[in-house]
Amino acid sequence: MSVSSADAASSTTAPKPTNFGALVFNGMDMLDIWGPLDVFQLNAHTFEMHLELIGVTMDPITTGITDLSISPSRSSFYPKIHPTATINDDLDLDVLLVPGGPGIRAASGLEPLIAFIKKTYPKLQYLLTVCTGASLAARAGVLDGRRATTNKRAWELVRGFGPEVKWVAPARYVVDGNIWSSSGVTSSLDLAYAFVAEIYGKDQSTLIANTMEHTPIAPDEDVFAEIWGVAPTSN
Amino acid sequence: MSVSSADAASSTTAPKPTNFGALVFNGMDMLDIWGPLDVFQLNAHTFEMHLELIGVTMDPITTGITDLSISPSRSSFYPKIHPTATINDDLDLDVLLVPGGPGIRAASGLEPLIAFIKKTYPKLQYLLTVCTGASLAARAGVLDGRRATTNKRAWELVRGFGPEVKWVAPARYVVDGNIWSSSGVTSSLDLAYAFVAEIYGKDQSTLIANTMEHTPIAPDEDVFAEIWGVAPTSN
Repeated sequence: MSVSSADAASSTTAPKPTNFGALVFNGMDMLDIWGPLDVFQLNAHTFEMHLELIGVTMDPITTGITDLSISPSRSSFYPKIHPTATINDDLDLDVLLVPGGPGIRAASGLEPLIAFIKKTYPKLQYLLTVCTGASLAARAGVLDGRRATTNKRAWELVRGFGPEVKWVAPARYVVDGNIWSSSGVTSSLDLAYAFVAEIYGKDQSTLIANTMEHTPIAPDEDVFAEIWGVAPTSN
Repeated sequence: MSVSSADAASSTTAPKPTNFGALVFNGMDMLDIWGPLDVFQLNAHTFEMHLELIGVTMDPITTGITDLSISPSRSSFYPKIHPTATINDDLDLDVLLVPGGPGIRAASGLEPLIAFIKKTYPKLQYLLTVCTGASLAARAGVLDGRRATTNKRAWELVRGFGPEVKWVAPARYVVDGNIWSSSGVTSSLDLAYAFVAEIYGKDQSTLIANTMEHTPIAPDEDVFAEIWGVAPTSN
């Protein structure tokens, strides 16, 4: 079976997670965090939840990229994101969200975030990766032996970061124990609605989806693997 | 016909818009701006585009709301957004994006933004409204006599702000001349992809959508009007 539901560790009888953190770094994709965090924010009106945006330092990060091969225009269309905490704070997180984006290709600067994922994962209730954010979790070693997915356009790149990961395609998102991984950018919404349904209840998830006018896509519904030439895997 | 394509004013032969602005205000919905702006940001790697986040002042705004009837939890899950410009700056905008969110229900404080929309609209190439952001454009009078849509859950509320607007339901998004309006939150992605297709080309829009793993929804494809009991309109 390529895509399974969550195991007992993430059943609705477990304590509901309260403290959420999301990593932020230069060149990240905006929707990778604001998409799922918006779903969670609507949930937070009802359930007590707290959020930290976690940077290597408190310096604002930019969603822009300096690689001219990717971004040859002279645009300035890159909002800044202001961290609310750093990787050196004692955050007591229940859930960590790891976004992706072109910034994961950076030759240097990501090591502290990868070390943070490695250090933090054993204390988490859940780890969520979005898009190429799975490459950071893979480099932290926490995906080794686990089923996970990632952006289908960046498939080979990300797979190279995690040779011991059981990469799954086609997949909109994958749940393996307490690790939830989504495919490219927008699929993070489907992961988020499934996460809310699993933890806070199906009715709550449907209410938020109907308010935000989103029809959630099933975990095994993925047209993009074929579009980007990703061969079906046996995981 | 309830939902039409753009008219000549928004054909691909017109000069491509360069200067984009997005309003930000307390209690806005995050995905209302970061969704379409992320689509535009990927476009900005190829085409020269500039973005300003426009507040009444330069003070950071919060996506949180203080109305306990909407948000009874003790959550702190509300990122701040830092404006890069104010409504008093000389911005020379080509495109203005007006997001919505629970903040549009505020009893006061929105008047300066509404006045800004009214003053700015005649100089714009395009006005884009997302979700209940249509209520702010309606209050500015710029939607009078035009076809537009909005969030279906908030339909009656928003309609009350624009008795002279030709509200359209069902509709995922509506284009009337140079005014593009989307339905609830996530529909802003479909509006954004249609906008990129119209201005920058269908192939460019499809490439971005495939990279972000989104299958755009057609303008007349709307299941949420019926879910929220919005009767079909004759506009």
